Amino acid sequence: MPGAAGSPFDLDHLPYGVFSRSGDQPRVGVRIGDHVLDLAPVAEIGDPASALARAWRTPSLNAFMAMGRDQWAIAREWIEEVLRHDVHEARTAPHLHPLADVELHLPVEVGDYVDFYASEHHASNVGRIFRPDQEPLLPNWKHLPVGYHGRAGTIVPSGTGIVRPQGQRKAPTEDAPTVGPSRRLDIEAELGFVVGVPSALGDRVTTGDFARHTFGVVGLNDWSARDIQAWEYVPLGPFLGKSFATTISHWVTPLAALDAAWTDLPGQDPRPLDYLQVDGPAGLDISVEVVLNGTVVSRPPYSSMYWSPAQMLAHTTVNGASVRTGDLWASGTISGPEPDQRGSFLELSWGGKEPFLVDGEERSFLEDGDEVTLRYTAPGTSGGRISLGEVTGRILPAT
Amino acid sequence: MPGAAGSPFDLDHLPYGVFSRSGDQPRVGVRIGDHVLDLAPVAEIGDPASALARAWRTPSLNAFMAMGRDQWAIAREWIEEVLRHDVHEARTAPHLHPLADVELHLPVEVGDYVDFYASEHHASNVGRIFRPDQEPLLPNWKHLPVGYHGRAGTIVPSGTGIVRPQGQRKAPTEDAPTVGPSRRLDIEAELGFVVGVPSALGDRVTTGDFARHTFGVVGLNDWSARDIQAWEYVPLGPFLGKSFATTISHWVTPLAALDAAWTDLPGQDPRPLDYLQVDGPAGLDISVEVVLNGTVVSRPPYSSMYWSPAQMLAHTTVNGASVRTGDLWASGTISGPEPDQRGSFLELSWGGKEPFLVDGEERSFLEDGDEVTLRYTAPGTSGGRISLGEVTGRILPAT
Repeated sequence: MPGAAGSPFDLDHLPYGVFSRSGDQPRVGVRIGDHVLDLAPVAEIGDPASALARAWRTPSLNAFMAMGRDQWAIAREWIEEVLRHDVHEARTAPHLHPLADVELHLPVEVGDYVDFYASEHHASNVGRIFRPDQEPLLPNWKHLPVGYHGRAGTIVPSGTGIVRPQGQRKAPTEDAPTVGPSRRLDIEAELGFVVGVPSALGDRVTTGDFARHTFGVVGLNDWSARDIQAWEYVPLGPFLGKSFATTISHWVTPLAALDAAWTDLPGQDPRPLDYLQVDGPAGLDISVEVVLNGTVVSRPPYSSMYWSPAQMLAHTTVNGASVRTGDLWASGTISGPEPDQRGSFLELSWGGKEPFLVDGEERSFLEDGDEVTLRYTAPGTSGGRISLGEVTGRILPAT
Repeated sequence: MPGAAGSPFDLDHLPYGVFSRSGDQPRVGVRIGDHVLDLAPVAEIGDPASALARAWRTPSLNAFMAMGRDQWAIAREWIEEVLRHDVHEARTAPHLHPLADVELHLPVEVGDYVDFYASEHHASNVGRIFRPDQEPLLPNWKHLPVGYHGRAGTIVPSGTGIVRPQGQRKAPTEDAPTVGPSRRLDIEAELGFVVGVPSALGDRVTTGDFARHTFGVVGLNDWSARDIQAWEYVPLGPFLGKSFATTISHWVTPLAALDAAWTDLPGQDPRPLDYLQVDGPAGLDISVEVVLNGTVVSRPPYSSMYWSPAQMLAHTTVNGASVRTGDLWASGTISGPEPDQRGSFLELSWGGKEPFLVDGEERSFLEDGDEVTLRYTAPGTSGGRISLGEVTGRILPAT
């Protein structure tokens, strides 16, 4: 593909998404450079009864993801082959569409959505901001990856406008709550993991089985209304402060494209319980950029996360809970140890008390019209860097 | 129908479920007495192109529920007609199957599942048990119906065995957490509400629109591992302490069957904010029985609930979050003001410290082999009482 070689969307990457052209049926495609390859018709040239093609004709990745790791590998090898060699050009060319000519959709039909809280720096910062008189980390935090269920039905694809949510909020200085547009609207820069192969109710997915069940990775912005959240979250956790929208990238990067990104965790002390033990590098060397209206305001390193994705999945199922194809779990806000590595505006502005400068302007929480983009890069398998699907959204006024 | 008249499943009730016979395709049926009527073939006798029949041929209620209130009313009127009058007997008889001859399935494909905490008596009891030094109700409790998202993928139909979950737990007297089978396994007797008509992202469902969006009611047992929950739930709420299983009834009672059950709420002070205001009777006069191994151990009255279902739905969407067909929300544990009206063993045994007597035996939390059944009755529209679908489950040893 002209323009693909050496780009962040070269043959090392090959993320999957769901696209349509001029209103036709959404279906699965793979991204190469600035094009999307319509997979099903190409696969059917060689094999009219192709099971992969049948899965790729559906409007989500779920059928393909449910096929399992062997089929994922076969598909990836076949895609590399047809894109790499000129001999296939005649059959691929009619099915390669410029991104500018297609519409991209939500790539996954999400089952359950779980959001974790796996960054020690983020959890410590939030603890210091919200509970300044206590130990920043709560007693359970280093023993288990703290998580909770979020709302699957309001997960939207990158580019969807985010209407400022209304809700109940009560500042400590106020006598009673009022309803109105959130005054402390925020982002959380996260990474999302998508389940491919389901597990049965009663079974555990061990940390060693992570790659057998997990299909790939998306960028994720867990939009958060801090004032709504602060008033509602004790004792049962966040609800309306998060449930109005969660944005994920159009593109799902398969785990195979991240082979070169695995790295050691920063270290876990105390030693986690046996079911949370991991062998070898369990962290991911993924760099994140938080971009506000075109200016990078933070660079959170995913490699600083305390808990690994394999531990999150093992924890989710230790009680026998099943996972389904399309289940999505997110890492929680990615914040590094440095002030300019914080993955939320809550932290960047220290609870709104220490506004930060963006292009000479003081900023704290999100304003109407703001556009936030999350960008992610990782080492590719051939030495360059790949870019995961970006996540963008603009704040629209409350209605 | 012989045996149906005067029974809790007479023409006043007509709950819907999903059934199959000897392994054939699950489909929608309606219960009358101890029989289930296979709806689609009967509807097709009169109208081979019946849209209702098409929806009823699918393996969940979702397609039917999505059709909306006018179609729900048309369907109910038609079912009453064909079951009431002898003239229809020839066409219904071949499609009426004894319950003993059918298998019943999960009736709904659940989208998002939200669990509330709407009983003042339950919330106060839990507060006194877990936080004895503080006010039992937290400051937000009387201003909003506190709720959180639960796991949709582990909702199971009545009769499913409940394997005792394993997980991390740490008693206050222990230095560090351990993993093992829950030692404080519990029930929560609740009522569930099923969404029929979806709402759009950004829209609110007002309290007045409750009956336009809500299809019906199920019995629900929110199985809870109190030791796992106690260790994990601060600050993001319950996760693995609840996510291993939630049981719902096979039968969904349509709202129309509950017309005679509406009753005034016990009273709300302070006055809720405008978006939570309700007109007229917003509570439900539904009696619940908690049965342990055949003995009634508690009789929680749903009429004692502080927050109404219409308020829960309005709250869920006040931030613009959408609801989908099949979304399910539960009331939270139903506990009345009296000790024998408590809807959880946590409360009945006051945190395990005051075991209660069942058939002369001291009991606190659930033991392997225990069978718990929740039964629900409500006034029918013709003066008798109807029985909502019961919810039963037996505790199996940890694996």
